[in-house]
Amino acid sequence: MNGIEETAGELLSIIRRDCPKVHCITNTVAETFTANVLLALGAVPSMTAHPDEVGAFVTSAHGVLINLGTPDEQRNTANAVAIDVAEAEGLPWVLDPVFVDRSPVRLERTRELLMRAPAVVRGNAGELNALKHESADGFAKFCSDYNTVTASTGEVDWIESAGRAGLVNNGHPVMTRVTAMGCAMSAVVAAFCAVHEDMFEAAVCGLLTIGVCGELAAAQHSGPGRFVPAFLDRLAEIEDAELKAAARYSELVMA
Amino acid sequence: MNGIEETAGELLSIIRRDCPKVHCITNTVAETFTANVLLALGAVPSMTAHPDEVGAFVTSAHGVLINLGTPDEQRNTANAVAIDVAEAEGLPWVLDPVFVDRSPVRLERTRELLMRAPAVVRGNAGELNALKHESADGFAKFCSDYNTVTASTGEVDWIESAGRAGLVNNGHPVMTRVTAMGCAMSAVVAAFCAVHEDMFEAAVCGLLTIGVCGELAAAQHSGPGRFVPAFLDRLAEIEDAELKAAARYSELVMA
Amino acid sequence: MNGIEETAGELLSIIRRDCPKVHCITNTVAETFTANVLLALGAVPSMTAHPDEVGAFVTSAHGVLINLGTPDEQRNTANAVAIDVAEAEGLPWVLDPVFVDRSPVRLERTRELLMRAPAVVRGNAGELNALKHESADGFAKFCSDYNTVTASTGEVDWIESAGRAGLVNNGHPVMTRVTAMGCAMSAVVAAFCAVHEDMFEAAVCGLLTIGVCGELAAAQHSGPGRFVPAFLDRLAEIEDAELKAAARYSELVMA
Repeated sequence: MNGIEETAGELLSIIRRDCPKVHCITNTVAETFTANVLLALGAVPSMTAHPDEVGAFVTSAHGVLINLGTPDEQRNTANAVAIDVAEAEGLPWVLDPVFVDRSPVRLERTRELLMRAPAVVRGNAGELNALKHESADGFAKFCSDYNTVTASTGEVDWIESAGRAGLVNNGHPVMTRVTAMGCAMSAVVAAFCAVHEDMFEAAVCGLLTIGVCGELAAAQHSGPGRFVPAFLDRLAEIEDAELKAAARYSELVMA
Repeated sequence: MNGIEETAGELLSIIRRDCPKVHCITNTVAETFTANVLLALGAVPSMTAHPDEVGAFVTSAHGVLINLGTPDEQRNTANAVAIDVAEAEGLPWVLDPVFVDRSPVRLERTRELLMRAPAVVRGNAGELNALKHESADGFAKFCSDYNTVTASTGEVDWIESAGRAGLVNNGHPVMTRVTAMGCAMSAVVAAFCAVHEDMFEAAVCGLLTIGVCGELAAAQHSGPGRFVPAFLDRLAEIEDAELKAAARYSELVMA
Repeated sequence: MNGIEETAGELLSIIRRDCPKVHCITNTVAETFTANVLLALGAVPSMTAHPDEVGAFVTSAHGVLINLGTPDEQRNTANAVAIDVAEAEGLPWVLDPVFVDRSPVRLERTRELLMRAPAVVRGNAGELNALKHESADGFAKFCSDYNTVTASTGEVDWIESAGRAGLVNNGHPVMTRVTAMGCAMSAVVAAFCAVHEDMFEAAVCGLLTIGVCGELAAAQHSGPGRFVPAFLDRLAEIEDAELKAAARYSELVMA
């Protein structure tokens, strides 16, 4: 059995070989950067949110991202269509409840979408904590209730499923100064989910890839401006062995 | 009493310490760059334009930007909600009437919004001149009528209130070759308004900060491509003393 | 009679001298990059898609881009208004049927728009082939039927009108790793159409300019991140003589 660091390298190779299509219904602030991150990684993004079209795009895709930033009526309807088609086609979809901690309307909508069993829910600690009813430390019960994996990203990323939990220790503070970096993380996780059976491992591997490339880019440019082009270049160029060597993952022993 | 150059440095420190939240309803072309400029500066942007949510976002914000580019029904409704909440909460809001000189519909909408007393109206000379009824040189009467401050940006920025006027002489021509640079200026002014009582001074200090960082970045890269990452890095890194030393402000003696 | 490479240099000079206004109704993923490409080139972009305003913007513009990515009701209505005004004013408009090969709804909409005789239809091979009814190799009949020019871009760009065809051999593979590069090509073609009578030549010259600047930028940075700022800088700085010298165009002899 491989360590998860080796799995990350293998999945990265598969993404570059198979170029999975990832359909993203995401917020207008994040669309361009998300598309460039997926292209740099080797995946093929599409972004329409028109309800009449989204079914055709999702049918021919391999993974889906539903990001709740900048909602509008069209996006809300398209989200429902995309999830229906993803479910019918057996495609994994990732939920990103952006700023759910700042909007009661968004919290209610997120609760409805959670009933549809997203493969992974990725957010920061404030967003994910707003979703939990109970006050327990971890997300095991939440993951069990909703049949999902949670990925709480920040200085350390905490990934959890009903039966497993681990930490990703890669990344750099400058990543919090770039808009849509979290949204792009969710899209990358969707790309990894598209090429792997195990959603917990896919989430970890996606976040390891982002974190390692972020570290490498910040070593070149730690200001938020020049960091971004350097980060995209690292995503496009990183070798499996380099990813595996730089990845810092710790499995947590569940209580 | 400090010179306004010293105030600029002090307000920059406050922004970095307090991380004011700035809710922006802005055009889709400008959203990403505006968010990155605010993050580089040290402020926290949010961007939803959904009428059901915008109230919650503005309530928890410290300043608001209303930018009229790429309007749609949702944005028009959201603007009204955001201004209502800003007024109720006593928050400053900045109006950016993009391309008001090219659209009669937009001119009419801007005239309505002016009745709501924006803290600052920022535009280029063509846009602001389209708003004036009278042909006088300055904006003193306009500012008095609408209880606002005008900031006309260009080779030299001209800031005016009912009782005071001044010029910001910083900046670089490459800034006109970057889309949404003016929109981002308005967002930065909103961030400065969020941490200061005097809206005239806040507008001047925001434009001094943008202008100085633009000059410093253009000294490294004067092409519009590499200028942008360099500009974001300067915004993130500039020290108060460097800002104060490079600021070129002239107070005008009112007639 | 000049070679088309010399025409490219001449048209570039005219764009920089006259700063043609190009109104773009384009997808939300592409808006910012498209605006920055046009600004770097020397043209003046505008981007509103509000049906009440688009007429005023198109009336004062010199060329129009209709891009079908991320459609919504407002954009669909605005497209019709923009084409009506462009036709009335005698302005060229360029059609970019993004992903028409992945959406039956979009295919139907594109077929309707083709009846309005766009100056140029630009897409990749998959998109343009989805539009042809017949299986012939070239697009001569298609161009004749719809009174248009086709520009199929890829490793080699294939431009065709009812009476003429040619190949542009400039460009670099990294351009496929940057989102909205194709969309920006269509906008640049619209800018060249705005300053020239011959739509076939305008399309060729626009694609030569993009291709040469892409090559020059990739020689500096071949990763998709740092390529983009370098590409914008080359667009802003390239001299006519440099463009002419680097352009690689081959006229095809029609059967």
